[in-house]
Amino acid sequence: MTFRAPLEDFQFVFKHLSGLPQLLALPVFAEAQFDLIDAVLEENAKFTEEVVAPTNRIGDCQPPVCQNGIVTMPVSFKQAFEHFTQGGWQGLRHPQQWGGQGLPRALATATTENLYAANVAFSLCPMLTDGVIEALLLSGTDAQKQTYIEPLVAGKWTGTMNLTESQAGSDLSMVTTRAQPQSDGTYRLFGQKIYITYGEHDLAENIIHLVLARTADAPPGVKGLSLFVVPKYLVNADGSLGQRNDVWCASLEHKLGIHSSPTAVLLFGDQKGEVGAGAIGTLVGQENRGLEYMFIMMNAARFAVGVQGIGVSEAATQKALAYARDRVQSRAIEGSAAPVAIVQHPDVQRMLSTMRALTQAARAIACAAAVADDLSVEHPDAQVRQTNKALYDYLVPVVKGFSTECSLEVSSLGVQVHGGMGFIEETGAAQFYRDARILTIYEGTTAIQSNDLVGRKTLRDGGAVALSLIAEIRHVIEQVGRTAAGAAPTQRAGFKLIAEQLSVAVDAYARAVQYVLDQAKDNIRAVYAGSVPYLMLTGYVLGGWHLARAALVCADAQGNAVDEGFARDKFATAVFYAGTILPRVQALSSAMLQGATLDDVLSRSALQQ
Amino acid sequence: MTFRAPLEDFQFVFKHLSGLPQLLALPVFAEAQFDLIDAVLEENAKFTEEVVAPTNRIGDCQPPVCQNGIVTMPVSFKQAFEHFTQGGWQGLRHPQQWGGQGLPRALATATTENLYAANVAFSLCPMLTDGVIEALLLSGTDAQKQTYIEPLVAGKWTGTMNLTESQAGSDLSMVTTRAQPQSDGTYRLFGQKIYITYGEHDLAENIIHLVLARTADAPPGVKGLSLFVVPKYLVNADGSLGQRNDVWCASLEHKLGIHSSPTAVLLFGDQKGEVGAGAIGTLVGQENRGLEYMFIMMNAARFAVGVQGIGVSEAATQKALAYARDRVQSRAIEGSAAPVAIVQHPDVQRMLSTMRALTQAARAIACAAAVADDLSVEHPDAQVRQTNKALYDYLVPVVKGFSTECSLEVSSLGVQVHGGMGFIEETGAAQFYRDARILTIYEGTTAIQSNDLVGRKTLRDGGAVALSLIAEIRHVIEQVGRTAAGAAPTQRAGFKLIAEQLSVAVDAYARAVQYVLDQAKDNIRAVYAGSVPYLMLTGYVLGGWHLARAALVCADAQGNAVDEGFARDKFATAVFYAGTILPRVQALSSAMLQGATLDDVLSRSALQQ
Repeated sequence: MTFRAPLEDFQFVFKHLSGLPQLLALPVFAEAQFDLIDAVLEENAKFTEEVVAPTNRIGDCQPPVCQNGIVTMPVSFKQAFEHFTQGGWQGLRHPQQWGGQGLPRALATATTENLYAANVAFSLCPMLTDGVIEALLLSGTDAQKQTYIEPLVAGKWTGTMNLTESQAGSDLSMVTTRAQPQSDGTYRLFGQKIYITYGEHDLAENIIHLVLARTADAPPGVKGLSLFVVPKYLVNADGSLGQRNDVWCASLEHKLGIHSSPTAVLLFGDQKGEVGAGAIGTLVGQENRGLEYMFIMMNAARFAVGVQGIGVSEAATQKALAYARDRVQSRAIEGSAAPVAIVQHPDVQRMLSTMRALTQAARAIACAAAVADDLSVEHPDAQVRQTNKALYDYLVPVVKGFSTECSLEVSSLGVQVHGGMGFIEETGAAQFYRDARILTIYEGTTAIQSNDLVGRKTLRDGGAVALSLIAEIRHVIEQVGRTAAGAAPTQRAGFKLIAEQLSVAVDAYARAVQYVLDQAKDNIRAVYAGSVPYLMLTGYVLGGWHLARAALVCADAQGNAVDEGFARDKFATAVFYAGTILPRVQALSSAMLQGATLDDVLSRSALQQ
Repeated sequence: MTFRAPLEDFQFVFKHLSGLPQLLALPVFAEAQFDLIDAVLEENAKFTEEVVAPTNRIGDCQPPVCQNGIVTMPVSFKQAFEHFTQGGWQGLRHPQQWGGQGLPRALATATTENLYAANVAFSLCPMLTDGVIEALLLSGTDAQKQTYIEPLVAGKWTGTMNLTESQAGSDLSMVTTRAQPQSDGTYRLFGQKIYITYGEHDLAENIIHLVLARTADAPPGVKGLSLFVVPKYLVNADGSLGQRNDVWCASLEHKLGIHSSPTAVLLFGDQKGEVGAGAIGTLVGQENRGLEYMFIMMNAARFAVGVQGIGVSEAATQKALAYARDRVQSRAIEGSAAPVAIVQHPDVQRMLSTMRALTQAARAIACAAAVADDLSVEHPDAQVRQTNKALYDYLVPVVKGFSTECSLEVSSLGVQVHGGMGFIEETGAAQFYRDARILTIYEGTTAIQSNDLVGRKTLRDGGAVALSLIAEIRHVIEQVGRTAAGAAPTQRAGFKLIAEQLSVAVDAYARAVQYVLDQAKDNIRAVYAGSVPYLMLTGYVLGGWHLARAALVCADAQGNAVDEGFARDKFATAVFYAGTILPRVQALSSAMLQGATLDDVLSRSALQQ
């Protein structure tokens, strides 16, 4: 079983759910119409299926090692990365001015999802490069842009984010890496960073590190952090590589998953380079505003990690479905002459349908968010830009938190569908289970995303975005109700179920939003005790909303030019989701509303001893 | 952080929740009073904490290998196993007649949980030996008992179950291993078995395999399976070891977890032994009744695997809690002068409380089930024996399915609490996540357990056991309601929450049971599509019931001689469980009741293509 890019679903989501047509109507995307989108998707499918996917298990079994500070990647990775740069995939969504193709971020959401699905460990390298490009475009000096962006966009050089230190994980205020200003305007950095993804490797000729550090006179806490560009090799004025800088890989971590992504401990100022003591870096923007710039990169990375969750879920689902169609075991529960493929057993159908439903729901949310991101940048109307920016900002923690939490459930079910085979490493289902486990942690844990959703994304605007989403969802429920009344008998029960369950769910969502707004002032611990449930129920509701919209489109498959088989599947997924996933919303909302009682009783227990 | 056996919780559960006092009142257990129980628990705690737990990571990092059919275990495992046999732990619950100690199975539930928590891969060996002892005691010939049971009870020899073949996993009707009768009354076996846990190792001098195979004239399907005892070494009349039998380890599997448990491919009849062609075995009971006998062993093993889930959950919870108390990161959400231990952050409390609540709920269910098992064997009154047998039979799939599914959630949260550290293998949290992943699969997947719960355990008795449990739960809800009315202000809200949520949950459970009973005849696929949700909601309700009973005991800690700190924690756990876990029951029940609509819509989708 090899990975197949879910082209049909992307095309459906783009055309009918994400709002892409509105985006393509803008003059800036005059050249990017659906035929180009389709052509790129097809080319990307070929690349990810044929070149990248075959490297996935190789990388799992032969993780790179660090010897004398040098990290050697598997040969197959080098070949795949060469294809990647030659295909221009790094530049897809970056400005044409810097050698990119200037295509919508929404399209890049699809192409990167396929990359993640094919090999998440491989694709972390381009993901981080994307983040560095974005941060430098928005905050870099002209000289930094001139020096770094073109080779990064070309995929000739790669990028990293250096935030974490052993005492500073979720809490960046504790960062201690020092930056000493030099007379020539550069800085010398000293310190140790951990968990640096692709911090060292031999896929590209240079590595551009963005590093959070502290100058001598900086205020304490996060307000004293500055951001620096520290290249592995200094860059000469003509763009050629100069001296080896004083940043070194001390070791790689031995991890549960994404084995072939080198997770480095980096030493800055270990005096092993050609530049003397201290890694030479240049300041991004102004001193003490580093976290602000890093957040640009982090936001992009958070969204991307959410998409990783969808990619891993898609790959796990495909693998499990293929196995279930192939594996013959036991007769059908309703009776059959001979044993049947296990896909016919009701519980296997439940598991596969759950996997499919969560994956497609998360994808619809992410693609719609990506279009909002594009609109927030490219739309000529400032009001539209602002509305879409607020929407995108609200959705980023949901895409990150929800899609990745779903990937834990999906990849676990993927193992379960395989039975005993799932536990054997050669099968490959276990790798998804291991790889997925980092996704809810890095680039901000689900709790960090949830706190962001509660604090900056719900409380700050008085719930405006959430309430506008609720109104839109209620509008769709009405449409579904009307459609149910006039639907064919085979669809009527399904539409009724969607309307009923989405209605119950959106009411529970509304109660949750109101609870956050009401309690934040007097009962902040109670609110934050329910922040993860709040994020998850938001994701479940939004996914149910998009799938309800999908069901409406599929009710008139012919009129909407949707393939009949695809429409039947999508409708089944929407109904299944409404019947089995949406009831979770009320359970989560109910739990959340008990925050005060629970916080009170826990505060008297011995947990904190 | 090292494992600590949860002695206080076992003592509380035994005294106040499981019904152990009723059991200890029987003459047969005249010698086993609470002081003996406590002494055994303490001795067991010392053994599992000091001898077994230190082997856990060693075994994970140095899995045994198979060379020329010989499997060499890590040295530390050999030492721990020697302690195990010397301590007489294998014989704890087996008859004194055969050298055992004849103590209650309920007590063995505690001692084995600690063993599983300390090192689940190690403890699979004794678990399987337990099953072989039980099967031979109930179905073996006198000669088989005389030959095998005493060394097995002493832990001198170990046992295995040989069911699975590559084409026969959940579906044992497809077993093809052949057994040819010989003129001396023995049989020669030929075939290949896979996934044989501790199928080969060097911890003990002999391995006693119980093997499902088919005689030449046997009817097809499961009704043609016979059970054979096949020792690795034949046993001479004086009990000494004779010739090497023709059963050989061809290879070991490379697994996601439980690395140090050797999972063998066994070849029967490979002509490498000293006995010529074919492994020599003797028939257990009668021909073609093998599955029936194997079910004895399987039922014991299923219950034991459920307890494994609890053990792994306990160990994962302890590790996460220790880390959360130690790791300082970020200020408190309500404000604090300095960063605090992360255990103070609301979401970390939510995760740890969820882990603790699920673990303790599952433990209470299992211990109560174990006492029912003891009563079903030892009680002088036939009616009491029968009632308890029915209850135990109902609970076995719940203990197996629910406890192990919970262990997936708990071990996953355990990784999450550790943040980035959780993904690093050296930390140890990831090992629980990997080890737990087999528990919902082996000895019958959760779907197999659920089908058992629906078919044999609910439909066959017209829901009698389920309905009697519902009546008991409603009785407890009344008690909780009365207690809430008179409770101290700090407890009133908690008791109210328990009463409300348990009431909603038990109603949803009742609807689910009724749905199974009503729909089984005309809509069997719809019922089985909801079988796993049915099992899970049953577990959640039963756990909530036991924790509500625990809260009642803790309301009068002094009167019930419960430590005040322990009582506060237990009460907090009960309230937390009611507020956050019990709402899942309604969501699952609601999903289950849509079975018909979902089955209909899925049957029209392309899943089965």
